[in-house]
Amino acid sequence: MTLLTRREFVGTFAAASFASVRRPAPQLRGGAVDAAQLRERLDALSRFGRPAGGTFADGVSRVAYSDADVAGRTYVMDLMRAAGLEPRLDSAGNIFARREGGEPSLPPILFGSHIDSVPSGGNFDGDLGVLASLGVLESLAASQTRTRHPLELAIWSCEEGVAFGKGLAGSRIAAGDVKPSDMDQVWNGLRRGDAIRRIGGDPDRIMSAVRPKGAHHAYLELHIEQGGTLDRDGVPIGIVEGIVAIERFVATVTGFANHAGTTPMPDRQDALLAASHLAIAVREVVTGEPGRQVGTVGQFDVSPNAANVIPGSVRLTIELRDLSTDKLSRLAAAIRGRAARIASSTKTTIDIAPLSSNPPAFATAEIQEAIARASDAERLDKARLPSGASHDAASMAQLGPMGMIFVPSVGGISHSPRELTRWTDCANGANVLRRAILDVDRL
Amino acid sequence: MTLLTRREFVGTFAAASFASVRRPAPQLRGGAVDAAQLRERLDALSRFGRPAGGTFADGVSRVAYSDADVAGRTYVMDLMRAAGLEPRLDSAGNIFARREGGEPSLPPILFGSHIDSVPSGGNFDGDLGVLASLGVLESLAASQTRTRHPLELAIWSCEEGVAFGKGLAGSRIAAGDVKPSDMDQVWNGLRRGDAIRRIGGDPDRIMSAVRPKGAHHAYLELHIEQGGTLDRDGVPIGIVEGIVAIERFVATVTGFANHAGTTPMPDRQDALLAASHLAIAVREVVTGEPGRQVGTVGQFDVSPNAANVIPGSVRLTIELRDLSTDKLSRLAAAIRGRAARIASSTKTTIDIAPLSSNPPAFATAEIQEAIARASDAERLDKARLPSGASHDAASMAQLGPMGMIFVPSVGGISHSPRELTRWTDCANGANVLRRAILDVDRL
Repeated sequence: MTLLTRREFVGTFAAASFASVRRPAPQLRGGAVDAAQLRERLDALSRFGRPAGGTFADGVSRVAYSDADVAGRTYVMDLMRAAGLEPRLDSAGNIFARREGGEPSLPPILFGSHIDSVPSGGNFDGDLGVLASLGVLESLAASQTRTRHPLELAIWSCEEGVAFGKGLAGSRIAAGDVKPSDMDQVWNGLRRGDAIRRIGGDPDRIMSAVRPKGAHHAYLELHIEQGGTLDRDGVPIGIVEGIVAIERFVATVTGFANHAGTTPMPDRQDALLAASHLAIAVREVVTGEPGRQVGTVGQFDVSPNAANVIPGSVRLTIELRDLSTDKLSRLAAAIRGRAARIASSTKTTIDIAPLSSNPPAFATAEIQEAIARASDAERLDKARLPSGASHDAASMAQLGPMGMIFVPSVGGISHSPRELTRWTDCANGANVLRRAILDVDRL
Repeated sequence: MTLLTRREFVGTFAAASFASVRRPAPQLRGGAVDAAQLRERLDALSRFGRPAGGTFADGVSRVAYSDADVAGRTYVMDLMRAAGLEPRLDSAGNIFARREGGEPSLPPILFGSHIDSVPSGGNFDGDLGVLASLGVLESLAASQTRTRHPLELAIWSCEEGVAFGKGLAGSRIAAGDVKPSDMDQVWNGLRRGDAIRRIGGDPDRIMSAVRPKGAHHAYLELHIEQGGTLDRDGVPIGIVEGIVAIERFVATVTGFANHAGTTPMPDRQDALLAASHLAIAVREVVTGEPGRQVGTVGQFDVSPNAANVIPGSVRLTIELRDLSTDKLSRLAAAIRGRAARIASSTKTTIDIAPLSSNPPAFATAEIQEAIARASDAERLDKARLPSGASHDAASMAQLGPMGMIFVPSVGGISHSPRELTRWTDCANGANVLRRAILDVDRL
């Protein structure tokens, strides 16, 4: 019947094991999260950053640190206050709202998401996790359910990384991925420190936003899948096994720019032709073995890029994602082999250099089980799957046990005004989050 | 022994036939074009638009209507005056210098090229034809050789079409491809009429630059090959069979932009993958039958062009060139067939729309023969070949008999500071031009 101490959490985040003995389930007085209110709030939040004259279906542009972001944050903080919660900002601009638990010595259970968006994004990515989390706190208050651990809702700033790259994400800063001089970087004409100040952060004290390992009992996040697996399979709840590793490379294909009229076909060193073969090779390598790995050539920058000049160079990106870094290494090696043969046959050179490397973040087995039990209690089908997208939860996995709940994205569309999660699925996700929090509270 | 009248020329430009009876060759007093002077002048002209601190080998940026272009034109007009020729400008800014012939009723033999360049171009493209033509006039004066026809050197404005597209080329205007309202178009912040005024033209009288069909006896142009055929084969003189037709298309590949992490490989509608297959198909179709046809995909514009987004659309150009329009139609049809299969297999749509269409311009058989005889007289090997690049001669072919002389481009490099034609080849070209003019004068 012993509880894990804060010290025992440290270093166990990847495959953290909770004490195996579970307390009896608390009597749930009251019931589900208020689904109608959740829907109303998703609609209300969508107005901050909505295109002029548009509707909910026209999506949202609420880029971090923009006026729309500031307005959206104010809206959510007002909701917190109305619910009797006092929002607290850390120096990175992350917003927290705390509900005390029954055992003051225990670390909090942390849960939440983000409300910033990509340009022309949708109204569920992040927003659902934040507003459902608030609904969970309200439903627990309504049912006078007292948890052992304190509960803490987190709204992480700048998750999408549009304005300053992923490096300024509030959850990354909280995980320690920051140094004071980062605040002086200027992106798109704006100093990072000034951006953080716009949302009430304090760049001069940025290191105070770093949370120590074990500072929370567990982190949970409800999010839309953004892929189409749950929707296609008709499964309402996804239990995330982990957030995939991401390896990015930049390939520079160098040929020789020459006159498109006067250079015979056999004499050409066409960089675009070679790059085209490489893009196809990436797909062939990635689909050449079973599994859920994905690989994308998303960017082609052609020089000189004129109809009447044989392209002299192409810079292209190669991105690979999977939970297994071994698999990613194998795929990258195979792509390099294909690139060498393509270069030889096209009389070009191909240089492939690493651009960035994100490690995988595994969801804690016990939290996956807690989510599974919560789904069963709600009589909802569930499926385990990796997250192909990164989330604030990836940073939180560096600090302690982590789990994520996915709900279906219709057609797998996300980062688009057409992003849609059915209201029923939103409510289901909120209720599974509520039960999973109460379950984790007993671990 | 009859000469072709002006009327008989009209309408015979594509396969014009001269009277088959040839006059006896005139006694060539004096000799070759001054090779040393030609070299000095190519060097002197190269200084107008040379990169700061550079040398001849650093190429030139003498874009039409620029200060460098105005200065280069002044330099060449001063050379004309020094040679006793009075430069005349037409309303398009084309420069002419005329030497009278022995039979005033005859139309002139026209010859020349251009001195504007592409940005970071070379010092032979156009310049050689202009300065060699001037050398021919001077050598004929030195040897007191009187031709029957008047001789007229033309320096066509804006051949490269950098600032305003090919539509403002002086030779196109001379061929009638112009209307008064064209002068009001604004490109890159500059009104066409104002550009023409910068070089001494008169946009208010632009139609006066149009030359009637048959206004000249023949048009000859010496130019660097820009391709590598003559250089590779070690042949000093190329006899151009014609200037290829150019068909340009824009292909729009439409897939669906989606998250690179969350969209499984089988669910993707990747426009860049489809576009890559199409670029390879263009090459396969073009090289799938014998001949000198070329096909180029020079431009890829990817949207949204981000490493972490599956491309939703790609706009790419397809350019096909050959002397035979039948062949081009066949190739285009084959590419459309391949595109339809690619669209089907990649779950994309591919729309291929015509962008522009330039007809072929055939060199007149009798002028090709005159160039061949001139090469023989100079004891220079010769080869017939198409011109894969367009030239002022393509417009002149619309007005009367046309012929072009090519000299080797080292390595086939052009539109580059590395563009190079050996001094010996420059001189050979000038001398073949001189003999060809005298030969055509007897036709």
